[in-house]
Amino acid sequence: MMVDHESLKNFVRSVLSRVGFSVEDAEITADHLVHANLRGVETHGVMRLRDYINSIRRSLIKVCGDYVVERDEGPIVKVDCRWCLGIPVAYKLAKLAVERARRYGLSVIGCRNLAHVGMLGYYTAIMARERMIGFMMANVFPMVAPLGGAKPLFGTNPVSIAFPTSDSPIVIDMAMSSIPWGEVLVAASRGEGIPEGVAIDREGRVTTDPAKACALLPFGGHKGYALLLAVEVLAGILGGGVLSVQVPSFPGSQGGVLLGAVDPSKFLSYEEYITLVSSLIKEIKSSPRAPGVEEILIPGERGERTVKKRIREGIPLDSRTWDMLNDLAKELGLEPPKPKDA
Amino acid sequence: MMVDHESLKNFVRSVLSRVGFSVEDAEITADHLVHANLRGVETHGVMRLRDYINSIRRSLIKVCGDYVVERDEGPIVKVDCRWCLGIPVAYKLAKLAVERARRYGLSVIGCRNLAHVGMLGYYTAIMARERMIGFMMANVFPMVAPLGGAKPLFGTNPVSIAFPTSDSPIVIDMAMSSIPWGEVLVAASRGEGIPEGVAIDREGRVTTDPAKACALLPFGGHKGYALLLAVEVLAGILGGGVLSVQVPSFPGSQGGVLLGAVDPSKFLSYEEYITLVSSLIKEIKSSPRAPGVEEILIPGERGERTVKKRIREGIPLDSRTWDMLNDLAKELGLEPPKPKDA
Repeated sequence: MMVDHESLKNFVRSVLSRVGFSVEDAEITADHLVHANLRGVETHGVMRLRDYINSIRRSLIKVCGDYVVERDEGPIVKVDCRWCLGIPVAYKLAKLAVERARRYGLSVIGCRNLAHVGMLGYYTAIMARERMIGFMMANVFPMVAPLGGAKPLFGTNPVSIAFPTSDSPIVIDMAMSSIPWGEVLVAASRGEGIPEGVAIDREGRVTTDPAKACALLPFGGHKGYALLLAVEVLAGILGGGVLSVQVPSFPGSQGGVLLGAVDPSKFLSYEEYITLVSSLIKEIKSSPRAPGVEEILIPGERGERTVKKRIREGIPLDSRTWDMLNDLAKELGLEPPKPKDA
Repeated sequence: MMVDHESLKNFVRSVLSRVGFSVEDAEITADHLVHANLRGVETHGVMRLRDYINSIRRSLIKVCGDYVVERDEGPIVKVDCRWCLGIPVAYKLAKLAVERARRYGLSVIGCRNLAHVGMLGYYTAIMARERMIGFMMANVFPMVAPLGGAKPLFGTNPVSIAFPTSDSPIVIDMAMSSIPWGEVLVAASRGEGIPEGVAIDREGRVTTDPAKACALLPFGGHKGYALLLAVEVLAGILGGGVLSVQVPSFPGSQGGVLLGAVDPSKFLSYEEYITLVSSLIKEIKSSPRAPGVEEILIPGERGERTVKKRIREGIPLDSRTWDMLNDLAKELGLEPPKPKDA
């Protein structure tokens, strides 16, 4: 089913308003979820909506949309998010990070008790569009074993960094795990194997059988393991005061979140920065290619193209998500979103 | 040849004094080089001494040991290092980063024109021993191709982060390349192959023949490539205002350097921080292990053990390095360093 992104966003906004979100918070959350679908990151898209609604009804996630400042040190701010849904809160924290970085040149915000924030690249891109280098990281419910271990001790611990350019920002957004856990579930449901070297069984042996996979491995061997640990300390300990092993699988599965902004114009003029970034992009795009390679990509470039394509052609939704949205429409007495051709 | 580390350090200090370093700068540089040997990072150890001396004599590297502040924005400082040997300068910049982070909670210093700094982990560990999370990164002469490319556009772009603990700091110190270029040279000189997937030939095809290797690949596939690019922007553009492709192979091969410190006590009390880091270390060390694994390591733990062993047993030097040191001793009229047993 191909769905028009504007119609989908209007629908999600209406659903969120019905369950108690303010106009602003419903708008931010709808934009985030639909943007994830536009970018091809379905796992952080509108398929989450039913879970959010259920968690709100069971009071596991709050409809508050704001944060409480616990400590304000100028460029460093510590906030408590009281298990509000993370999306509208993280949006406001990205704005705060930009505001502080404009004043101090850089900023770091540590957040605890923040329920699901979705796709980190959404927030770092917001900062980059404000001419800031934005970064964000989180530790989450344990799914990744240390190298040589047989038990998950770390979350997938995602990291995003976004750089302003003369055009769309360069958005890096990735987990420190080899693959997402969702890929294991998909392989299991299809009866397929998972790649060699990405997951281990309960004894710690590498397995390609998704049914036997009990933990993921870090990406990139011992270097990835080191970075996974760094995110654990930075996001978990500094951000949230909590280790992955202490994070419950519900609600939202996040431990601590650390985000911030750096103003490139404190290091060199913004024009010089843009000139150098443009040269770098040009060097990469015009570089000689390996045999069989059609194009050398900049991180995030594929996602950016998917956005443009799906704005034009519509967002593909699987039947399960489509049915869920229609059920929600019926339940709340709303018009369901429109197919692209309608 | 096993050499006593104290005797080696005294010797290096004397050599550096003879070629014009101040007492303080000779001490810092000697400590750095010998520490690299103690840690097992021979490529950044005393084997560099002859190159440094030659570069100084040819006025390619200066014996200045200090930096010029170009811009001071409080937590952000930009410095010009005027092609001084990087080691004593970077030491002083690490101290500056700590001082600024004590005042502002965090600091970032961008440096241009800094000749060889050696092992980044040396400086981040200094910051960590001052109860700061220290970080440092650099872009260097191009040796790494973007994924899909056939030409080196990026340096190996090393990154170090060090975290204070209740004992020795956790020191992460690694290049964004799959392997160091030195490993290709060693394999070539021994007539051995290099691992699959770490380097490419001049057409961009993956090769295991060190003689055909023209560029390294990033570590960890597309995720490592994204981080390599992030370091290029942060260290290269923000730090030094220069891309790897613009960095000459001489002197010292560095482009820009970015370093800084974050004070964990601005996020939670230092005691809480240490308690959580200790719990994390305990979780890792006591975690169930995969079959055949004797111990799960913390990043940098192996290096820390090598230091202790070599302080006790001496530093092994290859005959080429040993001869070079003895030649230097003769040339400058100094006592050569003492073998461990002597």
